[in-house]
Amino acid sequence: MSAYEKLERRFRRLANLGGAAAVLQWDWATVMPSGGAEARAGQLAELDVMRHEIMTDAELADLLIEAEAAVAAADLSPWQQANVREMRHRWAHANALPADLVAAFSKAASACELVWREARAESDFAAFRKAFEPLLALIREKAAAKSAALGLAPYDALIDGYDPGFTCAEIDVIFDDLAGFLPDFLAQVLDKQAGEAAPLSPAGPFPTARQRELSRVLMERLGFDFAHGRLDESHHPFCGGVAEDVRITTRYDESDFASSVMAVLHETGHALYERGLPAEWRHQPVGEARSMSLHESQSLLMEMQACRGAEFFSFAAPLMRQAFSAPDSGGPGADAAFTAQNLHRVALRVAPGYIRVDADEVTYPAHIMLRYGLEKALIAGDLQAADLPGAWQDGMEKYLGLKPRNDGEGCLQDIHWAGGDVGYFPSYTLGALIAAQLFDSARGQIAGLRAGLAEGEFTALLSWLRDAVHSQASRYPSQQLITRASGRRLGSEAFKAHLKARYLG
Amino acid sequence: MSAYEKLERRFRRLANLGGAAAVLQWDWATVMPSGGAEARAGQLAELDVMRHEIMTDAELADLLIEAEAAVAAADLSPWQQANVREMRHRWAHANALPADLVAAFSKAASACELVWREARAESDFAAFRKAFEPLLALIREKAAAKSAALGLAPYDALIDGYDPGFTCAEIDVIFDDLAGFLPDFLAQVLDKQAGEAAPLSPAGPFPTARQRELSRVLMERLGFDFAHGRLDESHHPFCGGVAEDVRITTRYDESDFASSVMAVLHETGHALYERGLPAEWRHQPVGEARSMSLHESQSLLMEMQACRGAEFFSFAAPLMRQAFSAPDSGGPGADAAFTAQNLHRVALRVAPGYIRVDADEVTYPAHIMLRYGLEKALIAGDLQAADLPGAWQDGMEKYLGLKPRNDGEGCLQDIHWAGGDVGYFPSYTLGALIAAQLFDSARGQIAGLRAGLAEGEFTALLSWLRDAVHSQASRYPSQQLITRASGRRLGSEAFKAHLKARYLG
Repeated sequence: MSAYEKLERRFRRLANLGGAAAVLQWDWATVMPSGGAEARAGQLAELDVMRHEIMTDAELADLLIEAEAAVAAADLSPWQQANVREMRHRWAHANALPADLVAAFSKAASACELVWREARAESDFAAFRKAFEPLLALIREKAAAKSAALGLAPYDALIDGYDPGFTCAEIDVIFDDLAGFLPDFLAQVLDKQAGEAAPLSPAGPFPTARQRELSRVLMERLGFDFAHGRLDESHHPFCGGVAEDVRITTRYDESDFASSVMAVLHETGHALYERGLPAEWRHQPVGEARSMSLHESQSLLMEMQACRGAEFFSFAAPLMRQAFSAPDSGGPGADAAFTAQNLHRVALRVAPGYIRVDADEVTYPAHIMLRYGLEKALIAGDLQAADLPGAWQDGMEKYLGLKPRNDGEGCLQDIHWAGGDVGYFPSYTLGALIAAQLFDSARGQIAGLRAGLAEGEFTALLSWLRDAVHSQASRYPSQQLITRASGRRLGSEAFKAHLKARYLG
Repeated sequence: MSAYEKLERRFRRLANLGGAAAVLQWDWATVMPSGGAEARAGQLAELDVMRHEIMTDAELADLLIEAEAAVAAADLSPWQQANVREMRHRWAHANALPADLVAAFSKAASACELVWREARAESDFAAFRKAFEPLLALIREKAAAKSAALGLAPYDALIDGYDPGFTCAEIDVIFDDLAGFLPDFLAQVLDKQAGEAAPLSPAGPFPTARQRELSRVLMERLGFDFAHGRLDESHHPFCGGVAEDVRITTRYDESDFASSVMAVLHETGHALYERGLPAEWRHQPVGEARSMSLHESQSLLMEMQACRGAEFFSFAAPLMRQAFSAPDSGGPGADAAFTAQNLHRVALRVAPGYIRVDADEVTYPAHIMLRYGLEKALIAGDLQAADLPGAWQDGMEKYLGLKPRNDGEGCLQDIHWAGGDVGYFPSYTLGALIAAQLFDSARGQIAGLRAGLAEGEFTALLSWLRDAVHSQASRYPSQQLITRASGRRLGSEAFKAHLKARYLG
């Protein structure tokens, strides 16, 4: 067996253990009784440790060197070569940190996340700070260690763990451009919407069972296959499981069906990406989704690009009306709030707000740019934990003209930092930009795409995405993948053009 | 770290991997979409292989020898000593088979089980035989290898994998005694029941939601804690998950609520055993359930001993009536079929039948004795695969006076052999005998037990079981555990006395 084949074996094991963990995490978030948490945490920790052991095994390092020699000697196929590149990337991240740092980090992150849950609810920054300060020190240590191992700047090295290939140098250019564009644009949109009659709010209640049924119908239209996936409920919507068994979740609010439906469409975008990954590279690094931003691009392409367009609502509004107007639904009947035009206008309302996860697509980048700037400063050491509330207030004022009334709706709102995840936030907005650029390209290449969406016809779009993105998995670096799919490197033009056409056009 | 401590660590890892696998198996049987089967099989196989690797690691063998020296030097506590004994037992089974036999066995068993599903449905013994013959050869190889490694006769060595401590020498005595008792007894019971008016059959439909609600109420009365467990649906009822998160399942038949309720009470008995295992020995071999027969004793004690008694029905009948007579249930109202006396009489109907899993407690041992005899002959080489249909027919005629109309309701009805499980069947009847002996002992020691059950009061019984059985886990060998709990080694007297009192008394 060649070194490359031996590597495939080890990474298949890693993928199987990762798949097992993914199902256990889904279970945790959806059906596990509260008393099972401790045992489950033990199982998940064990799987983590075992994966770490496999990744840090000395023999694996030797095999990688041998396989890289085979790459240099052109003994491997292009996919195999890319697979070795991705293996090396994972190896570099897993081996960048000394074992005691990994252990200390994991302990501090768990502790901080626990404290955060209560601190957020009670807007108690002082309590959070006490748990976050030691974690921040370890995050900086981690960034330094990854920096040394990967030859990247410390914050870039963290970003590389979620979105390999993107660095601050490139993100700064894109975000600066957006920061120049958005404030004026937002003012114009708010002005325009203020000058129009407000859309009608559909009146509930919207029974959970009806919302679920509607979600399933829409998911199937988008291309979701229930023989290979599920729809369930959890506190926060997510997409989990494995490619052959993709499980998305949502949460239902009986006074607002749109929030759940839109979450389902978003998660369905993630799920379709997973399902479209190439089966022949299943369980290998090269066969996995490219990055967090590419993943987010697939969810946002479905939710924001395809399903907040006027065409989608002319298809979906009758289904929504039907779902909530049956005799036993307690719903509103076929009233004016359920016209396609009105529902579409509801979906496009823009309003600056404190909370990122509730933000519309126009103000969302502001939330990200705020966090991105703070993360850079935190890692550079220019900002301390104690400075966060003030810096947050300043940033919200600058980006959105808002002053959070407390830290709970300010710098404590997200779980990311509390869990030690620094470097992830940029992926959200990169994903939005990629989505816009890909959808623009798809529209140019698929004749009648819009007319199709108005009929609930997603086949052509999905087929384009399968071909351009899903089937390529991690075959190419992100920018190369984006360039192949859309004809150019990632920029902000398509996103800006999309916003202008949708909100001012 | 001492050798013993190192062993505890390794076995904790094994337990965590086993716990992860248990949850993945539950998921498979309850909620997994069909398309997820292949990926899941890969995850489960990987976990199996990893556990096998841990158990066959040369260093583990050395540690065991060191720890056994510590036992001999009395350096360990009694629980630790018992833990080493149980570790050695697992080690002996895991290391008894050469790796190629393990692989060949697992492959042949999977293949045979697949064939069996269709062969049973179509009563096609010829198809089954083709897949079973190579498996049977491997089962015999396995028995021979375990025999050599464990110093037990081949069939005893297989039994030892499920029910350590029980051998044919002892089982033969007990089963021969039962075989002498049951035919006459059965004739008397049938005669008695034929002479009475048949009980009234409750008329459905019994809506699934009502059955589920009733089940949950009864489970809680028995002591099931939903913060540490779940009730779900699957094709066959089972008890799965882990001790901190015990998940039982049932299946609902809207024309027959009793079958589901009784399955739930049975599985609840299993669940209570798991929940009652000592938390301080969680994740160690000595902290796990004693054996398959002990496990079955806990389910049968709840289902057969406690919940088919007249007392239980005087508590449960009103709940059953209430569950199925509400205005929107479509149910039968407060009719005569729902009196405690009538429902109890329904629960005690005896009728010889072809199918083991549908059998009443009087005829059940006949099904087991038939299979036990055939297994002994198969392993001894006195019976070949091709002989099974004929031998089955003869056995059914001898034990129950019935002639199955086809192999689907004959020798193809159970999954065990098709999956390579030979040596398991005796545990069912041993469990029934242990249940009778334990319940007899509990009744003698708990004042007012019966009166309590008539009030739905299970606390005293559960507390007795926790003390005598659950908290002891695998601290003692089976017969010692039984003797400590009931004052004598396992025999058939309590079971026979129970049957006589219940069916002829």
